[in-house]
Amino acid sequence: MDLPSTTDIKSAALGLEGKARVTPLLESQILNERLGGRLLIKPEMLQVTGSFKFRGAYNFISRIPEDQKKHGVVAFSSGNHAQGVAAASKMFGMRSTIIMPEDAPEIKISNTRALGADVVLYNRKKEARENIGRRITEETGATLIRPYDDPLIIAGQGTIGLEVAAQTRAMGIVIDALLSPCGGGGLVAGTALALADESPDTEIYSVEPEDYDDTAMSLIAGERLANFPRKVSFCDALLAPEPGELTFAINSRLLTGGLAVSDDEVGRAMQVAFREFKVVSEPGGAVALAAALSGAYDITGKTAVVVMSGGNVDGAIFAAALQG
Amino acid sequence: MDLPSTTDIKSAALGLEGKARVTPLLESQILNERLGGRLLIKPEMLQVTGSFKFRGAYNFISRIPEDQKKHGVVAFSSGNHAQGVAAASKMFGMRSTIIMPEDAPEIKISNTRALGADVVLYNRKKEARENIGRRITEETGATLIRPYDDPLIIAGQGTIGLEVAAQTRAMGIVIDALLSPCGGGGLVAGTALALADESPDTEIYSVEPEDYDDTAMSLIAGERLANFPRKVSFCDALLAPEPGELTFAINSRLLTGGLAVSDDEVGRAMQVAFREFKVVSEPGGAVALAAALSGAYDITGKTAVVVMSGGNVDGAIFAAALQG
Repeated sequence: MDLPSTTDIKSAALGLEGKARVTPLLESQILNERLGGRLLIKPEMLQVTGSFKFRGAYNFISRIPEDQKKHGVVAFSSGNHAQGVAAASKMFGMRSTIIMPEDAPEIKISNTRALGADVVLYNRKKEARENIGRRITEETGATLIRPYDDPLIIAGQGTIGLEVAAQTRAMGIVIDALLSPCGGGGLVAGTALALADESPDTEIYSVEPEDYDDTAMSLIAGERLANFPRKVSFCDALLAPEPGELTFAINSRLLTGGLAVSDDEVGRAMQVAFREFKVVSEPGGAVALAAALSGAYDITGKTAVVVMSGGNVDGAIFAAALQG
Repeated sequence: MDLPSTTDIKSAALGLEGKARVTPLLESQILNERLGGRLLIKPEMLQVTGSFKFRGAYNFISRIPEDQKKHGVVAFSSGNHAQGVAAASKMFGMRSTIIMPEDAPEIKISNTRALGADVVLYNRKKEARENIGRRITEETGATLIRPYDDPLIIAGQGTIGLEVAAQTRAMGIVIDALLSPCGGGGLVAGTALALADESPDTEIYSVEPEDYDDTAMSLIAGERLANFPRKVSFCDALLAPEPGELTFAINSRLLTGGLAVSDDEVGRAMQVAFREFKVVSEPGGAVALAAALSGAYDITGKTAVVVMSGGNVDGAIFAAALQG
């Protein structure tokens, strides 16, 4: 497959007009003073379906050929891509089947169902979701929508980069860095691609949970490496085993580096997002904020945009994070 | 004092450009289907300082005569007006003294201090905050900023109504009703004033906590009545004892009616805001949403905007609301 271009991202942005939300940039005077830098968040939990994934899913689905639409779509996802695909396919009157791990957060499973998708649960330890996906596409003729390793998905997520560039330009500021959560790497790849064009001096960092920092390790090694987690992270959205082929081809060229944060740091970032920005972040959505707060990225004297990628978290997990 | 006019609101909006945020309108497809109506929230917890109060405070402070500015400002507030005044006065390089009840939420007291204000705590059962305010203004020459019963404050809060009108017009929809939290009545009065001009067929409702529904009772009686609470509400922002003189003069003319909700209904609305909109609402900020969810306002077949007025809530209270 070809890598997406900046033209593909601009085309995605045109298609998303009036469908996806242009999420604002938010900042907190109190937090900026405490950090000695300027931190702007891009709150994608306010996006349709509560995560950035709607952007890529809508962009992909809008380009499925008419004669294919009636066969529906199928996707595998721990929950945010699931909701994005379910909501977007519904807008086009298409059926969607979503393959989700049975231990996904309750809110992600029930919202995906509420959006009209057929949800197929599987056991992550016993079955390979790719096999289930292949079986369904063969039986039904449905179009498979990969969660990140696809040019149209990457281009859709990249619209965040276009928005950040336009919004910071309107504020009259140049950003030193953008920090983005990273699972399979579609969000950071698309965003980096957009900013390479629009704001070439901005450094781009991927941020991952400790022990799931396959992109960080791969950037150092110069080749795709899988992670070997010794412990489990509660960042359920960011547990992809290795970088995507397309996403890594982009990220290895455009990223300054990869950062990693602990679950404790993520929990504190969720608290700060609650207290200073009044937004709900799921664990995986808060890793980039955690990197700026913990010093993994040193924001002193700098201006940085932190992408917060989603807010689909169960109440009990969120309450536990608030209470430390 | 004269009542504010719609021209005053437009003038406030011009002054707030680039200072206050234009908060978006958010909706949830899942929630709309469940309700059988269309519910849009105006999430003012995303406003500077985490509540709508910054609008009025900034509008007021920007118009203090130059030779008065050096004496600073003083305000009494349970916490949201406090932060609005502290942040706005800091932008003008002015000192602020804020009189707050000692049992105000911790986040409100500490954020007001972090914004540079001198905080004077008092005991709500033993002292009258008006007396403390009078003493400070007499001693220092500081300008007193009332929390709601002032034309410039009402005009500032009314900019929400202008934004709602412009945003719904851009979406091509006409709203049947707007529901607004109500303490002293400044927010709903300003908003009603703006919408009377911009969207005259929209019904406006104030929403208050049960037992603190002085505006609802006063609207029925046709005169200002104080509330006689038999129990305490956790909606700390909405415990004003009676309607303001100016605010009631507006509200008695423009409001369709006043609604009241229980603390349990408010807690459930906080959960829905968390789950469907990914925003943090304080108890008082969620009363209007509670009215739409509980059926106090029947949204079936209707399109309504619900103002969510603030998100300054302590983690423990929020966690308790999430866990029912």
